[in-house]
Amino acid sequence: MARIQVGVIGLGRMGAVHARHLAGSVAGARLVAVADVDPKRLALAEELGVKGYVEFRDMIASPDVEAIVVAGPTDQREAMLEAAIESGKPIFCEKPLAQTLDAVYRIKAAVEKRGAFLQLGFMRRFDPGYAAARKKIEEGAIGEVVGVYSMTRDPHLPPYDYIASSGGIFADLAIHDFDILRFLTGDEVASVYAIGGVYKYDRLHEYGDVDNAFCTLRFSRGAMGLVHGSRNAVYGYDVRAEVYGTEGSLRIGYDRETPLLVLDQRGASHDYVPYFFERFQNAYRLELEAFVDAVRRGAPPPVGVDDGEKALAIAVAAQRSLESGQPVPLDPGGVLRGEAT
Amino acid sequence: MARIQVGVIGLGRMGAVHARHLAGSVAGARLVAVADVDPKRLALAEELGVKGYVEFRDMIASPDVEAIVVAGPTDQREAMLEAAIESGKPIFCEKPLAQTLDAVYRIKAAVEKRGAFLQLGFMRRFDPGYAAARKKIEEGAIGEVVGVYSMTRDPHLPPYDYIASSGGIFADLAIHDFDILRFLTGDEVASVYAIGGVYKYDRLHEYGDVDNAFCTLRFSRGAMGLVHGSRNAVYGYDVRAEVYGTEGSLRIGYDRETPLLVLDQRGASHDYVPYFFERFQNAYRLELEAFVDAVRRGAPPPVGVDDGEKALAIAVAAQRSLESGQPVPLDPGGVLRGEAT
Amino acid sequence: MARIQVGVIGLGRMGAVHARHLAGSVAGARLVAVADVDPKRLALAEELGVKGYVEFRDMIASPDVEAIVVAGPTDQREAMLEAAIESGKPIFCEKPLAQTLDAVYRIKAAVEKRGAFLQLGFMRRFDPGYAAARKKIEEGAIGEVVGVYSMTRDPHLPPYDYIASSGGIFADLAIHDFDILRFLTGDEVASVYAIGGVYKYDRLHEYGDVDNAFCTLRFSRGAMGLVHGSRNAVYGYDVRAEVYGTEGSLRIGYDRETPLLVLDQRGASHDYVPYFFERFQNAYRLELEAFVDAVRRGAPPPVGVDDGEKALAIAVAAQRSLESGQPVPLDPGGVLRGEAT
Amino acid sequence: MARIQVGVIGLGRMGAVHARHLAGSVAGARLVAVADVDPKRLALAEELGVKGYVEFRDMIASPDVEAIVVAGPTDQREAMLEAAIESGKPIFCEKPLAQTLDAVYRIKAAVEKRGAFLQLGFMRRFDPGYAAARKKIEEGAIGEVVGVYSMTRDPHLPPYDYIASSGGIFADLAIHDFDILRFLTGDEVASVYAIGGVYKYDRLHEYGDVDNAFCTLRFSRGAMGLVHGSRNAVYGYDVRAEVYGTEGSLRIGYDRETPLLVLDQRGASHDYVPYFFERFQNAYRLELEAFVDAVRRGAPPPVGVDDGEKALAIAVAAQRSLESGQPVPLDPGGVLRGEAT
Repeated sequence: MARIQVGVIGLGRMGAVHARHLAGSVAGARLVAVADVDPKRLALAEELGVKGYVEFRDMIASPDVEAIVVAGPTDQREAMLEAAIESGKPIFCEKPLAQTLDAVYRIKAAVEKRGAFLQLGFMRRFDPGYAAARKKIEEGAIGEVVGVYSMTRDPHLPPYDYIASSGGIFADLAIHDFDILRFLTGDEVASVYAIGGVYKYDRLHEYGDVDNAFCTLRFSRGAMGLVHGSRNAVYGYDVRAEVYGTEGSLRIGYDRETPLLVLDQRGASHDYVPYFFERFQNAYRLELEAFVDAVRRGAPPPVGVDDGEKALAIAVAAQRSLESGQPVPLDPGGVLRGEAT
Repeated sequence: MARIQVGVIGLGRMGAVHARHLAGSVAGARLVAVADVDPKRLALAEELGVKGYVEFRDMIASPDVEAIVVAGPTDQREAMLEAAIESGKPIFCEKPLAQTLDAVYRIKAAVEKRGAFLQLGFMRRFDPGYAAARKKIEEGAIGEVVGVYSMTRDPHLPPYDYIASSGGIFADLAIHDFDILRFLTGDEVASVYAIGGVYKYDRLHEYGDVDNAFCTLRFSRGAMGLVHGSRNAVYGYDVRAEVYGTEGSLRIGYDRETPLLVLDQRGASHDYVPYFFERFQNAYRLELEAFVDAVRRGAPPPVGVDDGEKALAIAVAAQRSLESGQPVPLDPGGVLRGEAT
Repeated sequence: MARIQVGVIGLGRMGAVHARHLAGSVAGARLVAVADVDPKRLALAEELGVKGYVEFRDMIASPDVEAIVVAGPTDQREAMLEAAIESGKPIFCEKPLAQTLDAVYRIKAAVEKRGAFLQLGFMRRFDPGYAAARKKIEEGAIGEVVGVYSMTRDPHLPPYDYIASSGGIFADLAIHDFDILRFLTGDEVASVYAIGGVYKYDRLHEYGDVDNAFCTLRFSRGAMGLVHGSRNAVYGYDVRAEVYGTEGSLRIGYDRETPLLVLDQRGASHDYVPYFFERFQNAYRLELEAFVDAVRRGAPPPVGVDDGEKALAIAVAAQRSLESGQPVPLDPGGVLRGEAT
Repeated sequence: MARIQVGVIGLGRMGAVHARHLAGSVAGARLVAVADVDPKRLALAEELGVKGYVEFRDMIASPDVEAIVVAGPTDQREAMLEAAIESGKPIFCEKPLAQTLDAVYRIKAAVEKRGAFLQLGFMRRFDPGYAAARKKIEEGAIGEVVGVYSMTRDPHLPPYDYIASSGGIFADLAIHDFDILRFLTGDEVASVYAIGGVYKYDRLHEYGDVDNAFCTLRFSRGAMGLVHGSRNAVYGYDVRAEVYGTEGSLRIGYDRETPLLVLDQRGASHDYVPYFFERFQNAYRLELEAFVDAVRRGAPPPVGVDDGEKALAIAVAAQRSLESGQPVPLDPGGVLRGEAT
């Protein structure tokens, strides 16, 4: 079977990761082009032996490019997606799809109209730990799901200009937790109660954002959930989850980066996973393999626009709960209809 | 310095544990008497070489007995405490002090009137893990406290007749979590939001109780908290906590009972801590040593009636939140004034 | 069934541990007496409410004392054992039985002549980890035993006057490893090859001793073994073992003392088991329960004089190998006949 | 700086791994060609968008190819190396260099004569765990090295025709342990004592090989060592090491593949690292980055022909000890002069 020829738009950190994976290790795919407005970043084209474009629209239009990875800046993503959707070529899009529900609705409408294939980059679903957990749950290994936990604790705050356009801690950071809990439970969120505050970075008050929040979730079939989003895990990148059921429990996560335990007069110590790339490097490759596989089989995308919409709906509800101090219900199916952020 | 001569009322599981510790390993104390209405249980008196009483009032009155451990059944505890308080002798009382706030208020009034020494058996505070965590927090090792977690997952449901008089999952089981989070944060709870349900034991509906609940807490200085109480951890006794701060985090708990890792074709496996006695065996001894030490030094009890009152107030608030679906505020100082369960 | 009335000779660290266990927590036993030449140590008699003797022979002769624990200093142990054996009462003896094979032979002869019950304090056999491992091996869980490891790494050197009369690192420290490997494999050692040296404490050269040694063992049915004895594990008391078989492996040991993991800018850290008492506190109680149980059932001692003899024979062979640089064979049955240290 | 253009000879498992790494993720390198006699394997050339050669000599001669990775079958490696050395281009060679000391001497002579750059694929040195351990040792974090352990336990036996030409368990499998202990200690082996046997695969007797062996090593500066090589770790790929010093210890290794802990009625369980590729996937990339870096800087190879010679000398000595039952000394510098296998 012929390999799919892929072009990558945007060579920032994640775009470069995707390009390298496609060049060397994603079975069934072949990187043929990259696009970035920054000529310095286009040095990667030469290194990987592929064609480089300054203008992403030219790359999309190239007949050599059969599938497109959209990894440009969030605030330009909608324009990139629009052009890619219009081309009819299969699309893999970094998360988030967009920062507002309104923008998500526009993209969703375009995808539906064109019948486009669009896969969203919620890579945790492809991490071997989360994927194995879901399989265990489906097999009934822990009975009925009672309670789920997911935490994303980033090691430090992103720059304040990023914060300014990030959409807030729920839409920017905890959205991964919201998605993965939907994935693990196979259920939709029915209501959200959120508390949070500024504990470390006082300047966040200027941006109307918080650095830590707890969200209590109620799922439609009854399961309870807790999400902790944080911007100040000084010890490393602390992303873990637990799914607790009537007949057992599953704990997902690992914390050691280097396989070395040091024993000295202070006792025993080891380092910690530093950041997302180290934690999810295999997941970033596996989600692309799933993309290639689905495209080749003519299957629907394993993570779709609906998943982006529903995770963002939970984030929006959490923000409202944080502001009101009250639990916020979602509509059946886990959506927030008739409203926008 | 002479050792304090102690008598134990009630030789059920915890009473027997306390009696054995006092007979062999609590420095500064000497077991001299035990009391139980059940003559079979009094065989322990002979085994430990101490005097046995069928009538606890006779034991309290004995001049040989200088301090009293109250470990009788919860529904007889108030009467035992009343007699012990009246005697003026120092008292160590198993938790809970009582099942209703009204009863706690009566005991508190008696203690205050008589100037009695009454220490409450929240043993987790004396577990080396929790105690070391508090010390680290006080030293500033993790900066300001942002979020705290505490879970109590019992391996199985107690008998239904116990459930009937238990006061519900919050007052009976999660009360340990409420106490330990007050201890770790050094702060009082300002509001509680609880969700929960019957996930495994349908018959609990008859008793108006649940088998699992999540409580989201807000502390008066801003920290967030999450408590998970459960009656169905089929794999063992899962009691853990985490204190997450602006400069680090502390994880308290351990899960392996036998120091043996088995490697075979199924991978790696080990057993789990079976139940509370195995988990907290050292804490049960250490809380008695702290009792003896405080009595000998004329210091106030390290865990007092107020601690019992405030933990129960959180439990009562959680129950109300579960029923109303709304967050429930507590009064300043973490109490629920002017009302009773 | 009546409880056995026990007297303890020698109230040093281990004697006091045994006395406390017998006073409070060893089912089926009752502490009635202790003996020590040091009147200060006899304060424990008063604390535990039992009779104290300055002269151990008086305690042995007392009709109240039905069984004897010998925990006096190693260089007085033979005399204590002689008197205890003569009395015909069951004996529990701290390890080592003696420091030379000659002394062991004398004790063995006395035991056989008198038909005495003598249990030796190789407590590791009663540690839940080692005991569970042996059970797994006997059940065939790991197939045939291929290789075994056992290490004893003490946190620091004992005083030099102790070293002077200790019998050397093999007879004093690694003897626990030799015994536990016999226990785990159910097999006898056929040959020993040892290397070692002075790595940290130069003054050991004066005593003809080493601070670290590796012993390679060959068992009679073919299994291989490695023992590491060390006097300088600055991080704590590091005692672990592994039994590797044709169908799996068993790893025995744990390293954390306090159930607390600290996460801060240096990563993750925890403390380490400090010393033997913390590691084996349950084993010290369980070996006494096994003693009481065997005596009451009229069963042979679970650890006997032969076990002391054979472990010491391996130690003596290791010492010879260290000196000669050559492998040293043992006689069939794991003994060193016709020779003495 | 221009990227080095690399060609890979041999597209078996390791050759394909190297080719993919060079195509996508080795900084400073660019894969331009691959060679394999098997046309099916050459499909990889098309997938990675590079030139494919059936005849490796043609690839070596191509002016596009600036550096060569030799990963062909062991029994053809000497011929490939000969041609590559002759070309004067820098070479990265999979381990082992050869199976006999005689062949190693011939390769060494050719390298010296031609002044060739030849790096050997002892990838463990580039694993972040082993590399961090060496750094700690060099910094003095554990004082002087006292004892070192290294084990390689393969999950299963290779095919018997592989065994027939493998050179035996020491030269084929334990050679990684011998190399890594030289690397960690920075020292040479002075003597070897080996025991071993056939525990599981009886047919190995036909090949004069064993399935398990323990080698006790003595290093020239006094450190002790233990290597365990095994062919039957049914639970997975168990490769670990420990370096124990006068002031602390370092434990290298990890055992869990999927970051998932399952808790159910059997307790807690997780899977195990399946095999070498999963364990050392980062090391395989990092050793190529070190190769590219050394070539570009004009530095000597980080792992050279001497390292291959000395590791093989230890293996040969171990085999002799196994056969003779006696310790076997090596010459100063860790070599076996004047003799060949």
